Amino acid sequence: MILNIKNPKKFRTMIRNKEWTSQTAGMMPGFIQANLVILPQDYAIDFAAFCVRNPKSCPLLDIASPGGYDTIFAKGADLRTDLPKYHIYKEGNLDQVVTDLKTIWRDDFVSFLLGCSHTFEPILYSAGIPIRYQEQGLKLCLYETNIPTFSVGPFKGNVLVSMRPIPAEMVTKAAVISARYPRVHGGPLHIGEPSLIGVDINSPYIGDKVKFLPGDIPVFWGCGVTPQHIALNAKIPYMITHAPGHMFVTDFLIEDLG
Amino acid sequence: MILNIKNPKKFRTMIRNKEWTSQTAGMMPGFIQANLVILPQDYAIDFAAFCVRNPKSCPLLDIASPGGYDTIFAKGADLRTDLPKYHIYKEGNLDQVVTDLKTIWRDDFVSFLLGCSHTFEPILYSAGIPIRYQEQGLKLCLYETNIPTFSVGPFKGNVLVSMRPIPAEMVTKAAVISARYPRVHGGPLHIGEPSLIGVDINSPYIGDKVKFLPGDIPVFWGCGVTPQHIALNAKIPYMITHAPGHMFVTDFLIEDLG
Repeated sequence: MILNIKNPKKFRTMIRNKEWTSQTAGMMPGFIQANLVILPQDYAIDFAAFCVRNPKSCPLLDIASPGGYDTIFAKGADLRTDLPKYHIYKEGNLDQVVTDLKTIWRDDFVSFLLGCSHTFEPILYSAGIPIRYQEQGLKLCLYETNIPTFSVGPFKGNVLVSMRPIPAEMVTKAAVISARYPRVHGGPLHIGEPSLIGVDINSPYIGDKVKFLPGDIPVFWGCGVTPQHIALNAKIPYMITHAPGHMFVTDFLIEDLG
Repeated sequence: MILNIKNPKKFRTMIRNKEWTSQTAGMMPGFIQANLVILPQDYAIDFAAFCVRNPKSCPLLDIASPGGYDTIFAKGADLRTDLPKYHIYKEGNLDQVVTDLKTIWRDDFVSFLLGCSHTFEPILYSAGIPIRYQEQGLKLCLYETNIPTFSVGPFKGNVLVSMRPIPAEMVTKAAVISARYPRVHGGPLHIGEPSLIGVDINSPYIGDKVKFLPGDIPVFWGCGVTPQHIALNAKIPYMITHAPGHMFVTDFLIEDLG
């Protein structure tokens, strides 16, 4: 199915009406897409603190008031219906995959939107920087590092990173461009030798192992899957997230974040 | 009293021992100083959401877990004792000024540290940009604008701004430099004509009216007093803040925030 609209509001309406149930990744280029985490209020302030303490991994874009499903990133949007697919976790295990949260919504649910590093890929690409995993038709690969997050309450564990091979002569450019956007992970967490951050390049945490071209350097960015990884490790009794690749499409362009 | 030490930990120890009870503003140049807000947990997630929704006014540097008085910005620090002076507000009115929170501390207190625009002033100054209010021996002047904040729960009201007259030929430089530091308010909210944001330059909200030199342009930045202003307007039953000018001195240099 080809998406032939350029208006995020129309796209979200299609999603709300179940006319679009596939991934949002790669759709509506230029518009910020956000990761979603929903937690019961008992865990909300610790999770907010965890995100603030680990901004490279968990760049907070928005928090809704308890029970709220609105966001300042899209007027009239409904976070219960405007993502194509949600994961519901119980005690750290995937319990259910749903397309709508209306029937299970509770007054104590607190919704968090987090920046997503996919957002800056079109900008790197426009600057002439190749995105290898896309060229090779693969999924972005993530690694677990040996870098501890700053823990808060039950939320603790290591930082996850996304890795993109970048031609050596473009590494500075990639670092400088991405650093302009701290709210979608900002500049790289690490550049070069993977073992220095405890990464074995042959063992991704998830995603596909990407092929390096001669002269490519591995460049590692903070990754929005970190908070999910941490929350699931913490075996939080109840937690909802977007399904991977099925993010929330906002009304804002990446340049609006400046 | 002249402060002749260059180590923030030593400075905080002096404060903890009540050997330093004056302002921190202007002390330990280069080190990030943070505004403090402490709220009971019932109000904490809405206040966190308010800060995330209004990052230019309320740049969150840290949140401690409920009952916690630690911060990742200074190992071993104690937020109950390491600021020289605290204000305690009840129902929106100043109730008490204290130098120590140990005896009144509660397990449901949530501490927030927010970036402070004083932090980038030494950098502007190093770049040759005059800081008029300092030249004139005045207090920085703040104004209330007609720009609404994004409200969350009880927290609502207009954005406050700090204003600094900048020579016209240096305005771009001041904007670009400050924009590099989004966690201490970032780039200007407004440049030029004050009436466009509802400001009468003759009526500061607090602070001293600064004198413009010929060719100066008024430049307005987001202001860390906004969250206090908003929380006091909301008549929150109980709230603690640093006393104006008596901030928390961190172990980090402004360049560490990049």
